[in-house]
Amino acid sequence: MTYCVALKLDRGLVFMSDTRTNAGFDNISTFRKLHCWSAPGKAVITLLTAGNLATTQAVVSLLDERGKAADDRNPSILEQPSMFQVVRLVGETLREVIARQADTGERADAAFNASIIVGGQVGTGATRLFLIYPEGNFIEASADTPYFQVGETKYGRPILVRAFDRDMSFADAVKLLMVSFDSTIKANLTVGLPLDYQLYESDSMAPGPIRRIDMEDEYFNVISTGWGDALKAAFHSLPPFTIPSG
Amino acid sequence: MTYCVALKLDRGLVFMSDTRTNAGFDNISTFRKLHCWSAPGKAVITLLTAGNLATTQAVVSLLDERGKAADDRNPSILEQPSMFQVVRLVGETLREVIARQADTGERADAAFNASIIVGGQVGTGATRLFLIYPEGNFIEASADTPYFQVGETKYGRPILVRAFDRDMSFADAVKLLMVSFDSTIKANLTVGLPLDYQLYESDSMAPGPIRRIDMEDEYFNVISTGWGDALKAAFHSLPPFTIPSG
Repeated sequence: MTYCVALKLDRGLVFMSDTRTNAGFDNISTFRKLHCWSAPGKAVITLLTAGNLATTQAVVSLLDERGKAADDRNPSILEQPSMFQVVRLVGETLREVIARQADTGERADAAFNASIIVGGQVGTGATRLFLIYPEGNFIEASADTPYFQVGETKYGRPILVRAFDRDMSFADAVKLLMVSFDSTIKANLTVGLPLDYQLYESDSMAPGPIRRIDMEDEYFNVISTGWGDALKAAFHSLPPFTIPSG
Repeated sequence: MTYCVALKLDRGLVFMSDTRTNAGFDNISTFRKLHCWSAPGKAVITLLTAGNLATTQAVVSLLDERGKAADDRNPSILEQPSMFQVVRLVGETLREVIARQADTGERADAAFNASIIVGGQVGTGATRLFLIYPEGNFIEASADTPYFQVGETKYGRPILVRAFDRDMSFADAVKLLMVSFDSTIKANLTVGLPLDYQLYESDSMAPGPIRRIDMEDEYFNVISTGWGDALKAAFHSLPPFTIPSG
């Protein structure tokens, strides 16, 4: 399993992913699920991947290779004229990889599937955020739905629904995601630290560094232990219930 | 879908369930999922059901009928000598119903499945709480895991994990469940009001009334609107994050 979230704020994008992958319960590893391509001043594109690791690694590798082999019939992800074309390229690559694996060898139904969040900015276009389905089609985040989650989305969703604000600061957004990830990590063994995150400030055309939160991260531990008490205090701040008599 | 929770407190049991059932997205109905049998001073048994409605209704009807037809080879649920035997009877009934439906007519794999929470007290035994799987086997709540959820369990779980206390009052427990249900209802269309709840005070050997919370319930609306603000306040009560420089 996996948990990845991307938020679309007024001031830009925030990406966070866990790094745990598992094949069964007794085979867990750490793999990066946050990938970024950028050409300074020209394009910044970040991917968050969830699903079959062989599929998502193949997609990322293909996108990487196409950027290097200049005469490939599929142009580089950084040469696309718009975010829409970027997402279409990623979606087609994802569909091709899944189709190739599903057509040969052992059949595993949905096991080759993956979902990908893509966000960024290209040229003079706006900052945009998309969610790509295993079929290769995609939807875009809007003012009504300003964030996407993939993987184990349920445990961490209530706090996003209630506390997200489009005009929140990057620092508050990272804090919010830490709470959402902590709730998920506490409930699902297949989502785990370390976490990767990245900020992108709209119109900067330069990606923020990809930073890592590991088990020794002091601030994350403050959030993780403090959130239980904060939730209890929130619960007790609501008016008490009175059991009806009779 | 469905959402049902039973809590085992020091002072007794608290049961809550939603009442929404759906066959597809365009066919929703209201059905009771909380069922209680009691013989004053002798036995109090409450069931919470999740899963295929035909299966759970058949199980409840069979348990009802066996209580009435005195010469049935399967004795009444109220005639069992212990909670363990009660749960075994319910589990066997559930397995029989699923097996009968799965063996005939159209095959629908897991679609006939159901899970049942059973709690109560029989004779001089202790108050006990069990979760029965579709296979008919079951587990019992303990000090380590003092509550069971069935159905759409994920959205409402973080607040249970953080705010549940074995020695909380019945009123606080109902309030806690309202918060947990509200988070679930806000996230999953197939869980919906009205809610049913029931309290059982250990050693009273008399079931509390089954009460209903509908859309006009003033207190539930206070919780539902207040919880968003309380969560935001909890979030802001945690120390702010500082984005690392460089």
